[in-house]
Amino acid sequence: MPRLQPVGFLISLLLASLSVAMLIPAAVDLAYGNPDWHSFLVAAAVTLSVAGMGGLTTRGGPLEIGVRQAFVLTATAWIATAVFAALPLSFSSLGLSYTDALFEAMSGLTTTGSTVLTGLDTMPPGLLLWRSLLQWMGGIGIIVLGMAILPFLRVGGMQLFHTESSDRSDKVLPRPGQIATAIGSVYLALTAACTLAYIAAGMSGFDAINHAMTTVATGGYSTSDGSLGTWREPAVHWIATVFMLAGSLPFALYVRTLQRRPDSLFRDSQVRVFLAVLAAIVAGLALWLSASGQASGMDAVRLAAFNVVSVATTTGYAVADYGQWGGFAVALFFVLTFVGGCTGSTAGGIKIFRFEILVRMVSRLMAGLQTPHRIYPLTYRSVPLSDDVTTGVIAFFTFFIGTFGILALALGFFGMDFTTALSGAATAIANVGPGLGERIGPAGNFADLPDTVKWLLAAGMLIGRLEVFTLFVLFTPAFWRA
Amino acid sequence: MPRLQPVGFLISLLLASLSVAMLIPAAVDLAYGNPDWHSFLVAAAVTLSVAGMGGLTTRGGPLEIGVRQAFVLTATAWIATAVFAALPLSFSSLGLSYTDALFEAMSGLTTTGSTVLTGLDTMPPGLLLWRSLLQWMGGIGIIVLGMAILPFLRVGGMQLFHTESSDRSDKVLPRPGQIATAIGSVYLALTAACTLAYIAAGMSGFDAINHAMTTVATGGYSTSDGSLGTWREPAVHWIATVFMLAGSLPFALYVRTLQRRPDSLFRDSQVRVFLAVLAAIVAGLALWLSASGQASGMDAVRLAAFNVVSVATTTGYAVADYGQWGGFAVALFFVLTFVGGCTGSTAGGIKIFRFEILVRMVSRLMAGLQTPHRIYPLTYRSVPLSDDVTTGVIAFFTFFIGTFGILALALGFFGMDFTTALSGAATAIANVGPGLGERIGPAGNFADLPDTVKWLLAAGMLIGRLEVFTLFVLFTPAFWRA
Repeated sequence: MPRLQPVGFLISLLLASLSVAMLIPAAVDLAYGNPDWHSFLVAAAVTLSVAGMGGLTTRGGPLEIGVRQAFVLTATAWIATAVFAALPLSFSSLGLSYTDALFEAMSGLTTTGSTVLTGLDTMPPGLLLWRSLLQWMGGIGIIVLGMAILPFLRVGGMQLFHTESSDRSDKVLPRPGQIATAIGSVYLALTAACTLAYIAAGMSGFDAINHAMTTVATGGYSTSDGSLGTWREPAVHWIATVFMLAGSLPFALYVRTLQRRPDSLFRDSQVRVFLAVLAAIVAGLALWLSASGQASGMDAVRLAAFNVVSVATTTGYAVADYGQWGGFAVALFFVLTFVGGCTGSTAGGIKIFRFEILVRMVSRLMAGLQTPHRIYPLTYRSVPLSDDVTTGVIAFFTFFIGTFGILALALGFFGMDFTTALSGAATAIANVGPGLGERIGPAGNFADLPDTVKWLLAAGMLIGRLEVFTLFVLFTPAFWRA
Repeated sequence: MPRLQPVGFLISLLLASLSVAMLIPAAVDLAYGNPDWHSFLVAAAVTLSVAGMGGLTTRGGPLEIGVRQAFVLTATAWIATAVFAALPLSFSSLGLSYTDALFEAMSGLTTTGSTVLTGLDTMPPGLLLWRSLLQWMGGIGIIVLGMAILPFLRVGGMQLFHTESSDRSDKVLPRPGQIATAIGSVYLALTAACTLAYIAAGMSGFDAINHAMTTVATGGYSTSDGSLGTWREPAVHWIATVFMLAGSLPFALYVRTLQRRPDSLFRDSQVRVFLAVLAAIVAGLALWLSASGQASGMDAVRLAAFNVVSVATTTGYAVADYGQWGGFAVALFFVLTFVGGCTGSTAGGIKIFRFEILVRMVSRLMAGLQTPHRIYPLTYRSVPLSDDVTTGVIAFFTFFIGTFGILALALGFFGMDFTTALSGAATAIANVGPGLGERIGPAGNFADLPDTVKWLLAAGMLIGRLEVFTLFVLFTPAFWRA
């Protein structure tokens, strides 16, 4: 059994930070004269007490984090944060049940963006800001996870990105200070740029800050029930499209671009494939919208680009109910739900590099079918692919699709219809946000679902966000032995 | 470019046999005094003429079949047979368009079982018999393909079953006479036993023969619009359940059981996993049906067993509209659509051994996550698994699911709703038969679909039946070089 004391101490530190973060919406509500500042203060106090008790219990030992501690830490960090981040929502004037509050917090922290709330347009500013903050914090968390922790844990072929850090020590987070500073700066800069752009396009300062946080985090929470569709200016939609894309590119490449090589972003295979595929799909969908007379000219391009990027980057904003666009569009959005962005970004889903490796494996096989005795080496970005990586990628697909199937069955078991069950499972695991159909489609809401279904979906979001393995490996007996 | 002369000659032989087979329904219609004997005779004449011309053009060369010839032969054999088998349906008193006739013939030969016909209960016997015969011939064709050709072509990990034949020469079909005789005898014996069982349970001789052919072939065509639901005797449903299962077990094991080792059938890993998984699913569904008050006691078990086995073995009979059983059942049948039976049987789908290998790959990975430096060997049936096999299996999953996604998008493009597009693509590629939803569900019919959709579905059936690669490899430029 791995030593869990250092994990407990780090989680306590994390919760203490979370309680400090709760003071921000508390201050905003106080400034706006909204009584909900009280809920945030109480929640902060509760969270800080627990953090303090945890910290006192687990302090003093060495803080060394091995492979198994890193697995436990990653899973626990997400769960603990969601459990406490739900408190202010649960204490607030909204009168949410804890189930609803946890669903909302988990959906926020995993940057999924499915919501059980309505009446966002008249909601107290502190609560809106808390939702956006959760997505923003979740976004930076997932970048760090994807860049520093998953490659070390060799989850789903992510060891491929281990080589990006020159330090090959056995500790997680080589040079954590440097990485965190560089990534944090890029993340802040993108958010600031997005905020200014939204303001320039006509949004209020408060709406702009909130949407900027949930855009760059590819989260999708909005301050309006109509999502970004409430803002009719095409410029707003284009700004969102650009910054959703920006949030779903590998952040390591931004840092490298800033440091040494300005062209590394667009020379990256993953980025090129991602942008090329999206461009082709947007073009196809725009033609479909034009041909079927549902939109024309630049309107068709804007609607297609916005909604395709929103789903493919796993953001989940809506400016139109694409459930009404006909079978082709609906099936397209269902398929897109699985794709996801680049690794080391805020996006979820299966992610582009895994598709690239799959295509390479299959191409080699096709070549080998005709000339069985030749050896075709497998490479990715000029590096030979080890069995370890290819198996990891395959295992990821297997678990991702398997979990999707089981979750869809479970949703069906608890009364969901076929479309809701299938699209609900997909949207949760890929951390997208909206599903399909009348209930949970882009024009729907998750509020009316049974509690069991909400818990299942929240679990799905967590499983997807942690790239499936990080969580499942904890349930293997071998993990806890020795 | 591979030499295609021997392929042309063998296809001509195949078509000549097909024209002889057309004489059977012709004779039946003549005996019953039905004028459609004329359609069969004309179709037989046309087919025989084409076969004759083809044979004369391509005769005389050496009949050696290499890897590439085998690929071309396999694909062409299925397409040519469907094109000509559609003729009697198209010429007949039913007044079918050629699109409908081809859809019906392709659905028959691939043992899919989706139908565009209604009024089966009053249809001339020759036409009913022709549909059953197509499935029966398709069934034996697919057994031979799975046992002798695909292992040789190393398609989708099937080289694993190459070792089953002791002859390791470079020619396809080692000892073709012996294999064909043994398999043919088992197939005939199963069909005869199934016919007698149906008669004993109260079916007419004609209905019994037809259903026996489509049961053992896991095809699913019926002589009644109500499928086997028209027969209310529980015994009929149980007989069908048993023989659908019999048709989806590896035929090589039957032969081995008869020859030497009577226990080899139930000691086979694939068979055990298949039966265990089905038993668990049947039990779960029976409980669901009881708990939701839709059936009780043995009725629930019978309905669950029949419908689960029908979909999992890719037969596609219906005795109830399981589309009305609620979200869980519908999602379950959707998932089951992909599973399929054992390899070397008449069943389609992904097939059990591929899931077994996937599970082994993933288990090894999970073990390796904690102890990265240990080597865990991968075996299946006590034989070490080569990279070749595992990559083949993975490539199969990729292509199967990829083709499913693209076909679903295409069906959506041509106006199908979400449920019809998704389930239609799945049921065609897995060669199951019924889809989900009002249009093509177990209570629906494929007749009203647009022609383009019918062609797409027929293409999907062919792709699935040929295990995807066998067809796709023909579209790679490398295949035709040198």
